[in-house]
Amino acid sequence: MTAASTMAAPPQIAQPQQPAKPRSAGDIVKAAPASDWVAIAPSDLLVMTLSPDTQGKARQVIIQLLPPPFSQGWIGNMKKLALAHWWDNGAVYRVQDNWVAQFGDPDEDTPQAKPLPAGLAVVPESEYKIRTFDAPEFINKGKDPYASFTGIERGFPVAYDDDYIWPTHCYATVGVGRNNSPDTGTGAELYAVIGTPPRQLDRNIAVVGRVIEGIEHLSSLPRAPGNGMYNDKAKNTPIQTIRLASELPQDQQPRLQYLSTASQTFRDYVSARVNRRDAFYIYAAGSADICNIPVPIRRAP
Amino acid sequence: MTAASTMAAPPQIAQPQQPAKPRSAGDIVKAAPASDWVAIAPSDLLVMTLSPDTQGKARQVIIQLLPPPFSQGWIGNMKKLALAHWWDNGAVYRVQDNWVAQFGDPDEDTPQAKPLPAGLAVVPESEYKIRTFDAPEFINKGKDPYASFTGIERGFPVAYDDDYIWPTHCYATVGVGRNNSPDTGTGAELYAVIGTPPRQLDRNIAVVGRVIEGIEHLSSLPRAPGNGMYNDKAKNTPIQTIRLASELPQDQQPRLQYLSTASQTFRDYVSARVNRRDAFYIYAAGSADICNIPVPIRRAP
Repeated sequence: MTAASTMAAPPQIAQPQQPAKPRSAGDIVKAAPASDWVAIAPSDLLVMTLSPDTQGKARQVIIQLLPPPFSQGWIGNMKKLALAHWWDNGAVYRVQDNWVAQFGDPDEDTPQAKPLPAGLAVVPESEYKIRTFDAPEFINKGKDPYASFTGIERGFPVAYDDDYIWPTHCYATVGVGRNNSPDTGTGAELYAVIGTPPRQLDRNIAVVGRVIEGIEHLSSLPRAPGNGMYNDKAKNTPIQTIRLASELPQDQQPRLQYLSTASQTFRDYVSARVNRRDAFYIYAAGSADICNIPVPIRRAP
Repeated sequence: MTAASTMAAPPQIAQPQQPAKPRSAGDIVKAAPASDWVAIAPSDLLVMTLSPDTQGKARQVIIQLLPPPFSQGWIGNMKKLALAHWWDNGAVYRVQDNWVAQFGDPDEDTPQAKPLPAGLAVVPESEYKIRTFDAPEFINKGKDPYASFTGIERGFPVAYDDDYIWPTHCYATVGVGRNNSPDTGTGAELYAVIGTPPRQLDRNIAVVGRVIEGIEHLSSLPRAPGNGMYNDKAKNTPIQTIRLASELPQDQQPRLQYLSTASQTFRDYVSARVNRRDAFYIYAAGSADICNIPVPIRRAP
């Protein structure tokens, strides 16, 4: 991972006195025991199939939903919407640079809006955060401009004050579009972050998950000016289907795992990441922004 | 700027006791006196013209170079490369999601590499930061995981420790590709950040400027897997030319301005941005990450 370096081989300089090479963050993840990998239940995955790209290549985006007790009102709605196949023939209709790609019903808020299924919950703003709980999985030692401190809980970045925990907005975070307060959205209109972590949205919008595979199919879409709404519907990217993975045939269910954020391996991985001492880096920060500690994800071996 | 909200009009609720509506960050910038806008000299702008997109639409990317005394060794090289038209017929040859778009000579480090002009400086690693100076323009009160504190200096985000200042890596920051330390790169191979601010690169790589117009032409390019190098040169995006704006005919020189980061207007803009109290936001963070305070840029009126 030579960052913005070129592809050239590093210069070979003999350094006979050098201590044993420290393991890289990547090496540590590769050496993790199988027991450190947590399977993500298919019922916690949304699989979005976009229309093929201009080259005819398939585009699949996989979203991991937050675990309880975070944002369960909206997530319950989203599972209902998925099981109703409500998003089928929807679209990605808004792509604003350094901000979000938004998707759902391109006709929402018009007379042509697709009716929502019955029985969706109206979730209160109080659900943007939850009461703090004991034994957090991973506490991040980096200072944070938006919270007392930050951490990672079952694979998801979170922030804390004395009494509450809330999921944070990072790159690839998925949240719920809404109108002005006190509306909190249903979960029908969603966005994925494609730029600088918009942490100012924390506790202002429901975070419901994160894209764990295929974010590049959203982040590389053409931008529209201003707030990113395409002025011409022909520019929308059609959504063929969004399915809960548990509804797919067994052999089509993505089998994904995240590196347990409660594990020693994860702590070692973060330590190696923030204290890089390899031939590329000359200065190690020693700590990191919570949005700059990606939780390793893999396909089950 | 209703964030990830929808396009719907806000609900109209009569609130007779409400105090005067606070000015938004956008309102404050619009009301700035002309004297708060600083013209960017054409000799501090690189204009990159990419090949037209698949729809035949022109793609221009404008980079503002850092002012002295930051990174002047590399920037001097870049001005020589631009005046030699060295980048013409180069390419964007690497696009890694949530990381960088890199450009220059797609054949570098091969026998077909384009020879560099004579007389380029070899810049030492000590130039990644500079000695601190008095009277910083804007100090950011947000806590920072990577530095003692942060600020903005003549339009550019910077970080500080007791003795030094250095330019930070944010979205759209432009830096110099290099091989392993102690190489620092010449300035011929450049990258622009297209994801989470990679602050761990601060003081490890030369920051030389930022894209102030047209970043979407880089951020929306197709991603390549792994480190983002396209495995097929046909996927590169050709660069037609990169010119110092001062070398262009007068009527083609972009006339751009930034909002003085020493001005009261800028302080008011930041304050409004971090203390949003409009109908969309219910919680204001009160401070912000240095990479989440975009410096307003405009075309000269």
